[in-house]
Amino acid sequence: MKKHNFSAGPSILPQEVFEKASQAVLEFNNSGLSLLEISHRSKDFVAVMEEARALVLELMGLTGKGYQALFLSGGASMEFVRVPYNFMTKSGKAAYLDTGTWAAAALKEAREFGDTIVVASSKSDNYNYIPKEYTIPADADYFHCTSNNTIFGTQMHSFPATEVPIVCDMSSDIFSRKVDFSKFGMIYAGAQKNMGPAGTTLVVVKEELLGKTGRHIPSILDYKQHIDKESMYNTPSVFAVYTSYLTLQWLKNNGGIEAMEKKNDAKAELLYAEIDRNPLFVGTAKTEDRSKMNITFLLNDASHNEQFDKLWKAAGISGLAGHRSVGGYRASIYNAMPIESVQVLVDVMRELEKKV
Amino acid sequence: MKKHNFSAGPSILPQEVFEKASQAVLEFNNSGLSLLEISHRSKDFVAVMEEARALVLELMGLTGKGYQALFLSGGASMEFVRVPYNFMTKSGKAAYLDTGTWAAAALKEAREFGDTIVVASSKSDNYNYIPKEYTIPADADYFHCTSNNTIFGTQMHSFPATEVPIVCDMSSDIFSRKVDFSKFGMIYAGAQKNMGPAGTTLVVVKEELLGKTGRHIPSILDYKQHIDKESMYNTPSVFAVYTSYLTLQWLKNNGGIEAMEKKNDAKAELLYAEIDRNPLFVGTAKTEDRSKMNITFLLNDASHNEQFDKLWKAAGISGLAGHRSVGGYRASIYNAMPIESVQVLVDVMRELEKKV
Repeated sequence: MKKHNFSAGPSILPQEVFEKASQAVLEFNNSGLSLLEISHRSKDFVAVMEEARALVLELMGLTGKGYQALFLSGGASMEFVRVPYNFMTKSGKAAYLDTGTWAAAALKEAREFGDTIVVASSKSDNYNYIPKEYTIPADADYFHCTSNNTIFGTQMHSFPATEVPIVCDMSSDIFSRKVDFSKFGMIYAGAQKNMGPAGTTLVVVKEELLGKTGRHIPSILDYKQHIDKESMYNTPSVFAVYTSYLTLQWLKNNGGIEAMEKKNDAKAELLYAEIDRNPLFVGTAKTEDRSKMNITFLLNDASHNEQFDKLWKAAGISGLAGHRSVGGYRASIYNAMPIESVQVLVDVMRELEKKV
Repeated sequence: MKKHNFSAGPSILPQEVFEKASQAVLEFNNSGLSLLEISHRSKDFVAVMEEARALVLELMGLTGKGYQALFLSGGASMEFVRVPYNFMTKSGKAAYLDTGTWAAAALKEAREFGDTIVVASSKSDNYNYIPKEYTIPADADYFHCTSNNTIFGTQMHSFPATEVPIVCDMSSDIFSRKVDFSKFGMIYAGAQKNMGPAGTTLVVVKEELLGKTGRHIPSILDYKQHIDKESMYNTPSVFAVYTSYLTLQWLKNNGGIEAMEKKNDAKAELLYAEIDRNPLFVGTAKTEDRSKMNITFLLNDASHNEQFDKLWKAAGISGLAGHRSVGGYRASIYNAMPIESVQVLVDVMRELEKKV
């Protein structure tokens, strides 16, 4: 039985992507060679990289607006280091919004590079909301935020208006909703939620912001070097880039970000409505800041957990356990998840209500 | 027609590895889920990571000797930066042996961290040999070398005796020959030659050498943090690690490094014998320093290139073009290449001899 996969990441991708990626491992583009054994500088793979980079900008509405898309390695955690290296001036400072585990991890790395200001934090409330009243110092080199907090199930539904370049970790909600991406100086996202398998990180950067820190940057950490080498400074993660490219194609062929947002809204509404209606369950995030990607909830009476766990496992659901820092349950409903799978979960929640 | 793939990297892997990896993309371990959509913290993938790490140490004869194996991200170019971060003291110095493009690239990154000494270089001879007469300063924090020079077709057939920790980039010959790995402080290798697909880098480090620099290390660049988190500091490159694991299993099941070395010796002897016998061809590397992984050669008369290119392409050979900095041809004959493919190349060289 094919599972209903609510895993927070790595996570569900379209079935056609799995099939095409699997085939490419056996033979790529009728070349007589596996995707895994071809040179990254071969004509066919260079075309994949170029088309994937162009597709990212097209889907985000950034074509011709001075942005570059890169597929780098190291995960979002590597960008926590690349960001201050590339954007924090030697004498400058950076402003961070602390909305969760990953936001705090990004901040921790930046602190070693210079002055960092935490404009606001929801840590004392176990990150169950997004702070909204804060000031970004006008002299900050950049403002860093995390658009969606995978662990705590909160999401920024608006972004601050500021002249300071906004650097945003969109790992867990990129390509899930319409955003004016041109308001950002730099966006990054580990592939393994909405874009592809683990192994590559998307970086979208406004080129004019680079080269201004007066700081020596190790080559592999320097966005300019990656741009100069067209995202082939060194051997890229070929399979992860190719599979991300397949997912981006699927996204485009299925109506792009606009169509995804409609689907995602419907899925989130369906599940949140059941959490709010069903007296057994309660959401963990403040209503106005609820994430449409990672839906976190608890059973009011933890003694029902065991029975609930049996029911959803029997229904073919996997990956529903909450992160240890929140407990309870987390349903990640990324782009590739069909609403039918969310309905299966809702049905199980109703079944539990009838049984207890 | 299945190709004879002489690509320098990413490069040939065992056919059974392609088949198993392809299957795992459809369904992993009868889980009802693709390898690409499971959590890296799932029981099944944690087992893959642990077994792969243990297998590396077992194959290298390092089990129980104070070493840790890690599967990191970023490529060998990232290790060029991690090495000085982790091993160069604030007031110290590092010694580098300059034997090729990648050795020089590693050196370039280290220079920004402190005092670097080039103990010897073959650059003025276009890196066609391995310098052997040099002194490693006894007070160096570490000595860095590149065991095999993929581009120039040279290989270190012995390593210096020194009390200074040896850090070695073995990207293009790891697992290809018996080496006393316990003589090294740290070994690293991009997976995409003998170990797996592009997307992960193997690091094998003697744990007692870490934590001594007095330098702040960004978390993702700190080997100690990766060891503490059992190579799961952040989401690893799941597919690349799994495929490397399959290749390591294949290696073990086929007699380990010792058996590979015998096969590799026979392949290299076959091809070098033809280069030396056939009056049309000449090797580019000094005989005593010839690589058994990447065999670089030229046609004495470049006007025969076109005819030779037609012949080898017609024979189903791919990836034979030399790197632009050497020209001519390069036959990469990694572990997974059968001697039959080398014989096809030799036959083509003989055919050319008859025709011209």
